[in-house]
Amino acid sequence: MTVARGTVYLVGAGPGAPDLLTLRAARLLERADIVFHDALVHPEVIALASRAEKIAVGKRCGRHSTAQRFINKRLIDAAARYHTIVRLKGGDPMLFGRAQEEIDALREAGVAVEVVPGVTAALAACADLKISLTQRGISRNVAFVTPRIGEGKHPSEWIRAVCNVDSAAIYMAAGQSEQLSAALMAAGLSAETAVVLVENATLPDMQKIHTVLAELPRAASRLGNGPAIVLLGAAFARSACAIDIRDGAISALDARAGAA
Amino acid sequence: MTVARGTVYLVGAGPGAPDLLTLRAARLLERADIVFHDALVHPEVIALASRAEKIAVGKRCGRHSTAQRFINKRLIDAAARYHTIVRLKGGDPMLFGRAQEEIDALREAGVAVEVVPGVTAALAACADLKISLTQRGISRNVAFVTPRIGEGKHPSEWIRAVCNVDSAAIYMAAGQSEQLSAALMAAGLSAETAVVLVENATLPDMQKIHTVLAELPRAASRLGNGPAIVLLGAAFARSACAIDIRDGAISALDARAGAA
Repeated sequence: MTVARGTVYLVGAGPGAPDLLTLRAARLLERADIVFHDALVHPEVIALASRAEKIAVGKRCGRHSTAQRFINKRLIDAAARYHTIVRLKGGDPMLFGRAQEEIDALREAGVAVEVVPGVTAALAACADLKISLTQRGISRNVAFVTPRIGEGKHPSEWIRAVCNVDSAAIYMAAGQSEQLSAALMAAGLSAETAVVLVENATLPDMQKIHTVLAELPRAASRLGNGPAIVLLGAAFARSACAIDIRDGAISALDARAGAA
Repeated sequence: MTVARGTVYLVGAGPGAPDLLTLRAARLLERADIVFHDALVHPEVIALASRAEKIAVGKRCGRHSTAQRFINKRLIDAAARYHTIVRLKGGDPMLFGRAQEEIDALREAGVAVEVVPGVTAALAACADLKISLTQRGISRNVAFVTPRIGEGKHPSEWIRAVCNVDSAAIYMAAGQSEQLSAALMAAGLSAETAVVLVENATLPDMQKIHTVLAELPRAASRLGNGPAIVLLGAAFARSACAIDIRDGAISALDARAGAA
């Protein structure tokens, strides 16, 4: 067995825009020998690793455990050959990033690991919207979930989480909007619950759609193929008309009128 | 009435360590004319604003609404006199940052507002711990809450949120650990629920204590006066012994032995 000499840094690449990277992440990339990056990381972020070999590994969603084991093995192998190994993940590594599997595998192999946190998509989307996840008198707690529709041991846990908080950020949800909307209404959430869909948060082609839970599938059909987040709760209602007539509120009102 | 000519940027200063600031935030600070900052922001972050007038405004917790109105007024006044006004907040502005009150006041006054997201304390604490908030088969959803003990219309909403997710990050909690522990156990959480306390996340004097819910008050009494976060749930149990014998796990075991 080769002795690991390198350190693997699990680094959050942030929500999209390259300047939403942290200073620490930028400095690590500049001195990295090798970078393993998710498919969704911005090319300008990857380009900061000017001296590094760059390897694209998998996507943020739809990754299978075989692929994960293969990534783990490649990281361990790299630690035997290089000094500074960066594993670059979209958003923050510790939230829906499958970081634990990589951390555990590296530790078992005796490889030093460090984690550099990043800006997560929900907070970046709220910055784009200029709507705070927490608001005095309206929202004092927040859930971050991914929907698991028809899989896993406890497919409804995400629903319970969403139904018991003031605001929810639902990651990797837009592709399942019909089931998501139906499941949350079946669990008792009002059809009129305020929802904002944000695609490509912080990027020039960012798209936001203000709508309500019952109209979520129709709204989601207007999104492209970029990563999207669903924000839900009363915090997102108060601004639906006041703030953004340009691109969202009118269609939300249209949708409601159409549903009536 | 004076016409606003400046833009107010609500900027996340990140969790503590100055290099966990985003590149965007660093560049904005460098060209800022005036900076209004929370008390907890690292001096090296504030020092990046080399040309700016620097004004400390309030604390992150314990701020009263009169103080908030005063901050709003100062921001509006600054927008009439300066080009680039930075309102620097610990962590991320959109999570427990009271950003909405400032955004709304600025908009009502016709002042342009932008929000720059930041790394929030919970994710930074998890990076320090090398424990992911979400873990395959263990934790698929997360709540971010602040405890409101004995105040407000719905003092128990945070409890309901914590009881209905796999992992919870409880902000601004360490000072109320006794009530927090009692309230969560009264609501049905096991006395053995895994808890990690993290004080001064990402800073050189970071302190982490692995414990269980019943022992939280005793563990919290060992913390200093720095900002602390409580992380709770099964995701934090698996690592309590394996990962960090040095500073946390032993005392957690001691505490349990003492309680037995």
